[in-house]
Order: sequence, then C-alpha cells, then structure tokens
Amino acid sequence: MEKLTGACIIGQSGGPTAVINASAQGVIQTALKADCITRVLGAAHGIKGVLEDKLYDMSQEDPAELELLKHTPSSALGSCRYKLADPDVDDSDYKRILEIFQKYNVRYFFYNGGNDSMDTCNKISKYMQKVGYQCRIMGVPKTIDNDLNGTDHCPGFASAAKYIATSCAEVWQDAHVYDTGMVTVIEIMGRHAGWLAGSAALANLTGCGPDLVYLPEVDFDMEQFIADVTAIYNKTGKCMVAVSEGIHYADGRFVSEAETSATDGFGHAQLGGLAVKLADIIKQKTGAKVRGIELSLLQRCASHCASKTDIDEAWLAGSAAVEAAVSGVTDKMVAFKCTREGGYKCETSLEPLDIVANFEKKVPREWINKAGNGVEQPFIDYVLPLIQGESNQPKENSLPRFARLKKVLTTQM
Amino acid sequence: MEKLTGACIIGQSGGPTAVINASAQGVIQTALKADCITRVLGAAHGIKGVLEDKLYDMSQEDPAELELLKHTPSSALGSCRYKLADPDVDDSDYKRILEIFQKYNVRYFFYNGGNDSMDTCNKISKYMQKVGYQCRIMGVPKTIDNDLNGTDHCPGFASAAKYIATSCAEVWQDAHVYDTGMVTVIEIMGRHAGWLAGSAALANLTGCGPDLVYLPEVDFDMEQFIADVTAIYNKTGKCMVAVSEGIHYADGRFVSEAETSATDGFGHAQLGGLAVKLADIIKQKTGAKVRGIELSLLQRCASHCASKTDIDEAWLAGSAAVEAAVSGVTDKMVAFKCTREGGYKCETSLEPLDIVANFEKKVPREWINKAGNGVEQPFIDYVLPLIQGESNQPKENSLPRFARLKKVLTTQM
Repeated sequence: MEKLTGACIIGQSGGPTAVINASAQGVIQTALKADCITRVLGAAHGIKGVLEDKLYDMSQEDPAELELLKHTPSSALGSCRYKLADPDVDDSDYKRILEIFQKYNVRYFFYNGGNDSMDTCNKISKYMQKVGYQCRIMGVPKTIDNDLNGTDHCPGFASAAKYIATSCAEVWQDAHVYDTGMVTVIEIMGRHAGWLAGSAALANLTGCGPDLVYLPEVDFDMEQFIADVTAIYNKTGKCMVAVSEGIHYADGRFVSEAETSATDGFGHAQLGGLAVKLADIIKQKTGAKVRGIELSLLQRCASHCASKTDIDEAWLAGSAAVEAAVSGVTDKMVAFKCTREGGYKCETSLEPLDIVANFEKKVPREWINKAGNGVEQPFIDYVLPLIQGESNQPKENSLPRFARLKKVLTTQM
Repeated sequence: MEKLTGACIIGQSGGPTAVINASAQGVIQTALKADCITRVLGAAHGIKGVLEDKLYDMSQEDPAELELLKHTPSSALGSCRYKLADPDVDDSDYKRILEIFQKYNVRYFFYNGGNDSMDTCNKISKYMQKVGYQCRIMGVPKTIDNDLNGTDHCPGFASAAKYIATSCAEVWQDAHVYDTGMVTVIEIMGRHAGWLAGSAALANLTGCGPDLVYLPEVDFDMEQFIADVTAIYNKTGKCMVAVSEGIHYADGRFVSEAETSATDGFGHAQLGGLAVKLADIIKQKTGAKVRGIELSLLQRCASHCASKTDIDEAWLAGSAAVEAAVSGVTDKMVAFKCTREGGYKCETSLEPLDIVANFEKKVPREWINKAGNGVEQPFIDYVLPLIQGESNQPKENSLPRFARLKKVLTTQM
C-alpha cells in the first residue's frame, strides 16, 4: 500500500449527541500522532466549513482541552444539516471541495454523523475517485436514534438511552408519591425508529419504569392506547407511558400532527408536544390527573449522565477511522461488531458507505411485544451492556467542565 | 428536662424533592438509636397515614435499604397535600390524631415538608398543648422552591438548582451547534419565588448559560421581553432564556394563563407550557427557529445529579430534629444558619414554627439586575456553595439503585 501524506479534515454533521465529541477526539488525537498526516484541520460546521474555507488548526489546541471533548456534549466544531446535490445534476459543491482539498493538500477526510453524513461521505468519495484525486474518506457514525445500518449500534445512542432510563426511573418515583391517581406520558425522540423509546423500559430494572411503551415500528391505535392506559390506571391508580415522538397511525400520519385538533376542557385547540396531547386525551377519557413530559433536547446532550461504554466506543470509532485510513482504507464507515453471550465485547469493523447510507434500521418486530405496547427481553439484553459505566465528567464548581477550544482558523495553505 | 419516652412518627408532605428521603433517613436512623424513642413509625402519605392509622414499622427495614434513602428521590413513605382545618372551626382531624398518638404512645412527631407542612406541625403542636398531651413536634424543612422563611436555604433546593444549571449548560451546547439562528426558552419551577429560575444563571460559570433570566419577583413585561430577546438574537443569532413558571404581569395575571389565546402560524390556539408559548411568541415576532423546553418533574427528582452538600444537609436536618426533640425541644423547625465568607459553613438552628409557616421567602430585589432579566453576583455567591459535591449515587446495571422498603404496616399498639 502506497503511503499517502497530507492533511486531514474532521467534520461533524447532523444532530448533536452526548458523545460525538469523543469521536472527534478519537480522530484528532490519533491523527495528530500519525506520521503521514501533516496537519489536522477541523471543519467549522461540517461540510459547510469546507465549502466556506473555514478550517480550524487543531494542533493549536491545548491537549488538556482536547481531552475534555470526551465529556463535552453537542458538536464542538459546529454541525450542519447541509445536503450535497447529486453530482450528476450539480457538481459545483464537489468542485469547491476538491479545490479546498487541493489547497490544503487534504488526503484524509473524516466525517462524523448519521445517515445523511454517510451519504455525504459516499458522494464525496465517489467524486474524488472519478476525478482521480487521491483522498481517503471515512465515516464515523453517530446518532442517538441508533438507526444506522451495518453496525451493531451507534455511538450516541447508549448515552441517550441511559439518560432516558434514569429519568424515567426518577419520574416514576415522583409520579407515585401521592395516593391519588396519576397518568404520566413521557415523549422520547426517534422519528422512525423506536430504539430510544424502547430504552425507557430499562427503567423497569430499577423497579420503577413505564407500564407501557409505544414505538414507531408498530402502527398506533388511539382506541387501543386509551384502553391500555385505562386498564392499568383502573387497577393501580397510576400509569406511566413512554412514547416515541414518531408514533403514527396505520395510514402513516404522525399522531403528533394528526391530533392537533384535540381540544382541552375549554374547547381550545391543543398544540404543543405529543406528550401533552396524549396526556390531555387520557384526561378527557378517564378524568385522571395527567402530566405530559417531553425529554426534548435534554436527552441528546446529557453528558453528565453519559455511558462510559458509549464514550469509550465513540472515541474508538474515531480512532479506528484514522488508523484504517492511514493503513490504506477508504470509502468505509467504522462500525461495531458485538457479542453479548459470555460477556459483552465490542470490536470495530469497516462497512461500505453505500450499504450504510440512506437506510434506517428499525427495532425488529419480534423484540416488541405482541400487543405493541412494550419491549421483550432481547431488546433489554441488546441495550443493557451499552449503558454500562459512569462518565465521571470533570467538574468545576461542581458543574460540567466542558472543553474550551480556541478554534484558530487556518490561513496557511 | 423531663425524659419523654414513647414512639415517634415521621411523615413526609408536599411535593417531592431529590433529597427529602435523606431527611427522613436522618430522622429514622437517629430515632432508631435514641433510648427514649421506643418505636419509629413512618406515616403512609404524611398526615393522612396518621388519620387512617397506616403506619409503617421502620425497625423492620433492612438498614442497607434505609441507607439508600439518601439517593432515592421523591417521598419514600408517600406524600400528601392534606390541609388540616382550623381547629376552632373543626377539630375532628385533631381528635383523630390525638387518638392515634395515644394508641401508639406517640411522643415525638417529625414532619418533613414545606410551608403547608410547617403550618400542619404548628396546628398539631398547638392542639396537643391545649389538650395537655405531651408530644414534641418538630418540622424538618424541604422544598425545591427555597421559599421557607427562617432558614438560610432549604433542603431540596440545591439539588434542583444543580440539575437546572447542569441541564442549561448542556442545552446551551446543543442550541449553539448550528450556524443558524436559534432561541431556546427553558421553563423552570417556582410559582412565587425565583430561586430556581435564578439558579439557571449558574450555568454561565461553565461559559454556557442563559442570556436572560426572568423571575417572578419582577413584574413581567411582554414588550420588554421581546425587545430583550430580539436584541441578543439580532446580535449573536442565538438567545437562551430561562423563565420561572410563575412570571406574571403587573396586574398579577400569570403569563402562563394570560397567554392561552396566543395563536400559532395556523391560527390555532396555543396551549401547553409557558416555554412553548413564549417560544411561539418569539417565533412570530422574529421568525427565529425556537425551542421551548419545560424541565417539568425532572428538576425535582433528579437524584442522579443531586448536590452532596444538599444530601448531607438534608440528612443533618432530620437528625438534628430528633436530637433537639429528645433533648426537650418542641414546636420548632430545624433551620440552617450559614456563613459564606472564608469558606462555606452551615449549622442548624431551631426556629419557631409560626414564623416559618405561611410566609414565602422571595429573592431580594437587589439580587436581581436592574433590568429584571438576570441575577447579580450576590445571588450566585449565595447558591454556588449549596450545589457543591457529587451524589455518587449507588448504581445497579448502571442505573440508580433506589431504596426498596418493605413498608410493614404496624398492627401492634
């Protein structure tokens, strides 16, 4: 294999997670040590930073601050939601990327993101091959949704799952404090895949978890939902429900959108989150005291409650991407191959970008119970090893001490 | 002082906190060791458990499980929101309480709660004095709202404050990830006092905190609010706002209630939380992308993010109540006297129940900035020592390991 010498770019893309910066750290720290990588550049706001020639010189950062990236949520380099055009239709972005790559002699490109980011990687890789510019392009996965194909699981998912399970267990305690009736509905992210909503069921391992869990993999039936909740509420005086934001009716309409016309007791149209809407519907049907709680952004940035396993694996994914690229690999995403029997083990593998991109991995139907309102043991067995270990986030004033990067824009070619 | 021998009852009342069980633990562990306390009874759901003769025998609990109460949120014995009548109008509840006290020879009564609970303590104490039944009655404070009079601060407040500051810092990171505009509104508990909302400003110590903070101590002006947000948004492209749920107009109307008629872009009436409403108003005025986040129950039960200082002080308050009662004190609430100069120090004191009850302690106006949209340094200096130290919550499967009490109802007199 030919040794390829030049600069590298690391970019972050898509929605943030608690550990995407651990992956960036894995790339940066490994790249800074690699002989054939002459410079490590961070793209400001992902591919937009490349297009706009806004690149940070990562060698100028204090190594102690880079170390803190492991415990800093969201994308430290900035993120974007920029979709590259089909190069056969419009190749202007690709020409510009090539120009920047040539300007800085970029020979390694690491892109840290979800489905769309892997698609971006794939398109850039194909274009560079077509025009004969030698550059090794690697995807580093991240997404709290855990819907990436070709990998056992995805960095970012486990920390969100741990936060969700922890919060559900705590809210359960709160919701059971009075001897009066109470229905709690907790809304969890995941538009098309129910990995996160299902993870709420982990809270049941503490003895305090949701009675019902609804995933978008199963068509939602409002009558059945009301019957499910009412049965438990009538029996115990309480009911705790976890719902994915992406639950939808059989005809495909999201419940969150279809139910905007629900009205409260005063005849007002009820907007706001799905949790509030469902809680309101239950209130009308049962007269129960209800509480709708949306975990919102909290669930994807809760670095204080991150999984150590997730942090370590996120770092590993970034580091493995650099090692593979340096050894000659290109056009691949780092993935995880895991075994759970006889103790959890996780190793990296390399998967073709085109089998990863643009395909959403769903929760298998057989991991969801027959009634479609809970998860089965195989789901728990799958997720539980991933949330293990505490983050031990460094603190200052007993508050999180996040990385403070200088972000020195490079002017040098 | 005459030695008073008999049983004790511990009850919990009002909204839960992350550390109210640490206070119960302080009472129970200290009472179990006290020679003159013959039995330690836990009231199921506060004073309701007394009225209904539902009392748990705490000596039957596994000491290791009692130890876990320190890290178990919400009220382990169950809580209530039961208001005793004026005994001059209706003394039936008081007669029943006396009957139960006599039945079990209860000579010590510890009540763990907020304003209303101190009022309950005070009324029971006065009644027992009136009828000549010797019983020492002590209040053990708790409330996340921190609005109890007669004490430097209140157990429960600091852990909620720490969770709020931590979450605000994390959400700030998330809200600053794209190079596009974003306004985030975070809604925080505290109907009449802004201690919790103000604590969001602690996040600024991490470099990542709210730009604006609105407390109920200052009349809210919607035009000024819009101007405040717009000015920051226009300058930086971002704005993060923390608001107390209790903000109100000069005429006293809560903004959360007065603004139910706000409409979204489709002309739908906008209900749901205050955060969503304010975010919607900003969206209409500025066109900014907005996100309203309600911290809801999460902020009062987040034991995984509790302050060690708060846990320790909550335990101390319970323990000090028992020690004081055993030594002859009655009709008092345990309070904190603190010094902050030359290092934080906290000692317990004993305050008359009647100066504590039915008075809400507000944030001093001079601790809020002149514009009424932020807090001043004295506020930070006041809160910061209280949130110090990590909870180091015991885990099982990397999830919280809460106390599992047997709750054996006593049948024995």
